Amino acid sequence: MQPDHSRTRRWFLRVGAAWSAALVACKQNASAPPAEPRALGAPVSGYGARSRFERVTRYFTQNTKVPLEEASSRTPLHDTYGIITPSSLHFERHHAGVPEIDPATHTLTVHGLVDRPLVFTVDELKRLPSISRIHFLECSGNSGSEWRGGSGDSDVQRIHGLTSCSEWTGVPVSLLLRECGVRPSATWVLAEGADACKLSRSIPMKKMMDDAFVAYAQNGEPLRPEQGYPIRLFLPGWEGNSNVKWLRRLKPMDGPAMSREETSKYTDLMPDGTARQFTFDMEPKSLITRPSGGDALPGAGLYQMTGIAWSGRGTIARVEITIDGGATWTPAELQTPLLPRAHTRFRFPWKWDGRETVIASRCTDDTGYTQPTLAELIAVRGVNSQYHNNGIQAWKVAADGKITNGNRA
Amino acid sequence: MQPDHSRTRRWFLRVGAAWSAALVACKQNASAPPAEPRALGAPVSGYGARSRFERVTRYFTQNTKVPLEEASSRTPLHDTYGIITPSSLHFERHHAGVPEIDPATHTLTVHGLVDRPLVFTVDELKRLPSISRIHFLECSGNSGSEWRGGSGDSDVQRIHGLTSCSEWTGVPVSLLLRECGVRPSATWVLAEGADACKLSRSIPMKKMMDDAFVAYAQNGEPLRPEQGYPIRLFLPGWEGNSNVKWLRRLKPMDGPAMSREETSKYTDLMPDGTARQFTFDMEPKSLITRPSGGDALPGAGLYQMTGIAWSGRGTIARVEITIDGGATWTPAELQTPLLPRAHTRFRFPWKWDGRETVIASRCTDDTGYTQPTLAELIAVRGVNSQYHNNGIQAWKVAADGKITNGNRA
Repeated sequence: MQPDHSRTRRWFLRVGAAWSAALVACKQNASAPPAEPRALGAPVSGYGARSRFERVTRYFTQNTKVPLEEASSRTPLHDTYGIITPSSLHFERHHAGVPEIDPATHTLTVHGLVDRPLVFTVDELKRLPSISRIHFLECSGNSGSEWRGGSGDSDVQRIHGLTSCSEWTGVPVSLLLRECGVRPSATWVLAEGADACKLSRSIPMKKMMDDAFVAYAQNGEPLRPEQGYPIRLFLPGWEGNSNVKWLRRLKPMDGPAMSREETSKYTDLMPDGTARQFTFDMEPKSLITRPSGGDALPGAGLYQMTGIAWSGRGTIARVEITIDGGATWTPAELQTPLLPRAHTRFRFPWKWDGRETVIASRCTDDTGYTQPTLAELIAVRGVNSQYHNNGIQAWKVAADGKITNGNRA
Repeated sequence: MQPDHSRTRRWFLRVGAAWSAALVACKQNASAPPAEPRALGAPVSGYGARSRFERVTRYFTQNTKVPLEEASSRTPLHDTYGIITPSSLHFERHHAGVPEIDPATHTLTVHGLVDRPLVFTVDELKRLPSISRIHFLECSGNSGSEWRGGSGDSDVQRIHGLTSCSEWTGVPVSLLLRECGVRPSATWVLAEGADACKLSRSIPMKKMMDDAFVAYAQNGEPLRPEQGYPIRLFLPGWEGNSNVKWLRRLKPMDGPAMSREETSKYTDLMPDGTARQFTFDMEPKSLITRPSGGDALPGAGLYQMTGIAWSGRGTIARVEITIDGGATWTPAELQTPLLPRAHTRFRFPWKWDGRETVIASRCTDDTGYTQPTLAELIAVRGVNSQYHNNGIQAWKVAADGKITNGNRA
């Protein structure tokens, strides 16, 4: 399916002063003759696909002169529902393209500070005890445009689409390390991928033994190639880049390897010129996804506002909405079940009076951390970083109903 | 993607007397040189797809001489993970094929015993307050082959693959009915689809007002055509056929319509010649999906057993496993969170001694109902029905490790 860069804008047709009024506005017709079905339809399918009436709108970033191999695609958050992201629409971020790997020959080597180095085939991993978890995955470069003002005409996919949420299945890393006889001196583990750049990251042993797993399935079927097929490292709540795809090697060590992706990249340059390093946690964040940048409201009335919130440190406890530029905040309804380190869907009925305003959401997780304003974040971190921007996203609503990025207001 | 009727059988390679022993059996090699990645891989994709190494194995039923339009496809339960079924692998059951519907012209008419008949466009439905729920959907004809003995060489997809589980999003039916001013005399609601046979079912008003919704999204994207695009009725926990796809009409009435699908079909013929009618609940059921019919165990050893359980009446409270033909039962581990009316993943470590035996699972839901044996079910219901078979599925394990349907033992 080809990406379509146009935007479908049919969400926010005007509704009345209440749902009831909205519905009375529907065509009242006791004898409406809907189109009559006539012919037999299509047969059953071997592997279902989207309707041809539902075009996919995706935004691609291309960072270098290497076309689309050192690049990213984003999840169209404006047009998603609930908390599960379809695997086909999960964001992608590749540093050397998507390798084609035959699972019959791929292996995972565990060596370094262990008593029994082992080489696991994919089949061997799949027959060990497994777990399934619904977790978000977010690139730490998500929302990076907002450090330095963003762009006025950007939409929610382009600004924030490097986050997605799936059910992942795999084998705990702790099981693998214990069976290899990991030594007490091992405090970090190098994880290396089988892409052409052998992307590698150093992960603290505590995380590896706590909740890390080697995932081989996503949303009920094998991992997609662009998500690390046949196996990837999964670190619940941690920045996407550390969840090494196409995993080929785990090496317990007595310190971090200081790889490219944890020194010149994926560190946070502070105002004083120092860099925060090993900033793994994705901190609490929320977004109003509808209405959002690019929408045009047809007029005053009642709108169902919706969006997502998540925290790499725990479970979302509260999402609040402002419809007056931050003067007052009101709790939104949270979709249950509330899952740790997962997208959480929120909804809020908003009666717009037709005047210019700014709307935004902010979340609080069960550790008590509340998402900061962008100004508060910049006051501490400056504007040099590319990563870990979890500031409140403001959407500016003009009197004509047009919605734009309000972060520069 | 073309269906592949071959079976991949690489799940149950032999493991040793314990996971540790299993892993020591792996190739010990401290300096194994995994294949080196060389070239840049593929670019980012507009809409991701499965690896070419992961072929889809699906079983199709064709019930009439109309090729694959009055037919079903099944979910390959043996090769799924966790609780979410990918939308592309959700089972399908069509009575007149899959209509191609343009959402810009499709409407839902609510008329009958209401004060204000209304016609809703799809856009109008989408801007009303919505809910998202993770629920299973099961055809009541699932497992129907087991009423009369099944077949010895059947596998879990072929016998039980008419059940799947997704996150569904839509608007509560209660909201629509209330806004139309439904009258107190209305005790049932006719739901009609826009397929060529205008499939219709009568649904009790209590269910419609309790938790029914008009779904327009599945697993984060628009409904697939084969699941009712652009809108379907969703009745949590109720037999699949009553969840009318391609929904075009809701008509509150003072009694059931006695449509074809609730009289000559989808009723349960009892031993005395009477028929149970309006048997909507899908009762508690569980399946060991791995190992299962068609698998061949390479020898005695420790295996990770896994499967799914669900109940249309509530939440799974317990799954028990027998490895000795029903003499003893031991609790399996349940994957959390436990969700009402959703597939629940269970896992159980099984040490097979290499001798012939029968393995099975049975579940109990939070109403206290325990899944019956097939013999107990047949003692009450006889063998005339096609529907609502939730008997325990026994798998016979031969001394050579071959696994077959044990329901005829």
